[in-house]
Amino acid sequence: MQVEIWSDVACPWCYIGKRRFEKALARYDHADAVEVTWRSFELDSDAPRAQGELTVDRLMRKYGMSRDLAERNMARVTEAAAEEGLVYDLQRARSSNTFDAHRLVHLAVEQGRGDAMTERLMQAYQMEGLDVADRATLLDLATQVGLDPDAAADVLDGDRYAEAVRADELRARQLGVNGVPFFVFDGTTGISGAQPTEMFLKALNQLGPQVEPLVMMPADGQADDAACGEDGCAVPTPKAASDA
Amino acid sequence: MQVEIWSDVACPWCYIGKRRFEKALARYDHADAVEVTWRSFELDSDAPRAQGELTVDRLMRKYGMSRDLAERNMARVTEAAAEEGLVYDLQRARSSNTFDAHRLVHLAVEQGRGDAMTERLMQAYQMEGLDVADRATLLDLATQVGLDPDAAADVLDGDRYAEAVRADELRARQLGVNGVPFFVFDGTTGISGAQPTEMFLKALNQLGPQVEPLVMMPADGQADDAACGEDGCAVPTPKAASDA
Repeated sequence: MQVEIWSDVACPWCYIGKRRFEKALARYDHADAVEVTWRSFELDSDAPRAQGELTVDRLMRKYGMSRDLAERNMARVTEAAAEEGLVYDLQRARSSNTFDAHRLVHLAVEQGRGDAMTERLMQAYQMEGLDVADRATLLDLATQVGLDPDAAADVLDGDRYAEAVRADELRARQLGVNGVPFFVFDGTTGISGAQPTEMFLKALNQLGPQVEPLVMMPADGQADDAACGEDGCAVPTPKAASDA
Repeated sequence: MQVEIWSDVACPWCYIGKRRFEKALARYDHADAVEVTWRSFELDSDAPRAQGELTVDRLMRKYGMSRDLAERNMARVTEAAAEEGLVYDLQRARSSNTFDAHRLVHLAVEQGRGDAMTERLMQAYQMEGLDVADRATLLDLATQVGLDPDAAADVLDGDRYAEAVRADELRARQLGVNGVPFFVFDGTTGISGAQPTEMFLKALNQLGPQVEPLVMMPADGQADDAACGEDGCAVPTPKAASDA
């Protein structure tokens, strides 16, 4: 089963959703057969790349909240995170542009480190007050999870994976995704938000063990004339279907 | 779009099918959005790991063919390969156990080299008469495509990815795959055999640009209470849906 997860780095619910999904996976009998693909989603693609403002200031400025309300809201999300074992420090969180962070995740996926890179970036923003738009910070985080520093620098100094990030975001729009985290199971079933672990487990159990019959192309079944099987390989003209 | 391709290394039609699929991809407008996943399939899981017999001898022994028929069959598949630009030398091909080769492909996938490793192994068997069960040969081929030699040796000397190979093969059985190459598009549509490039292109065009509406879980739509969107993040109790 393929599970695609759209998320942003600077997204408190995404990290919580990641943990809840992981807990479901740990309780799922066929977890070995689940492949997770990390998809990019920028909550604020217009955010500046320069050192972002504190999240509390952004909430006050952008949504006209009082400092008190902004801090209470952050405290409530922090409580939800704590229930999943995540120690948030949103007071220090700085809102930045996450485009480069997403490009780096795409590099990490190619190197088999997609989960580790995503995890490290989410931790950096939610727990450590690090600026996830800063080149040196990103390079450091990439190196920490085992990416080749030269490859990471090459990504950060150019525009590699920009198309991949945009393709993820285009697909999200096509699917009607307007908030993250957003989970898509086998391209057919969606879960929006950091739903409870039980909901993810339900989706895995409903979709996992069954195998839908494939629709075959061509439908008329002249499909095996160029294949190898237990009994050998098909041989083209003359008609004799023997072994090569 | 996800395309899963089940194949074996020692499978003349698989390499031909790979080329035909690649040609379709080159003519497809949204090739960037296609992710290929290599799946393991052993045509003969009982084949010995020791230096295999020549394929022509195996055909004579296993299927009771005359040498003349076996060679004519190999010649016909060789012609089909030549039409795709592949210069086969099946006279030298040695039938071996491909389990370790498949495990190596899984390592390569994790390092972003799945296609290169698959390509190199198919070439080794079909064109170069190399023994794809031999440890030193496999290590050499892995290094040639840029895998870390220590990581490759670690795989070959242990049983890493054995479960991954078996999981691929189990899923193939569940899907009713009994010959390779076998292509599955987005988990829903199958193509068996090295079908013409046009057939692959047709599948890509039919399945690619459309996006099926997702089935949402939970169905009652209380789905966005733990997500972040353009307008900020949901906040748990009390009910107020403001930003954190």
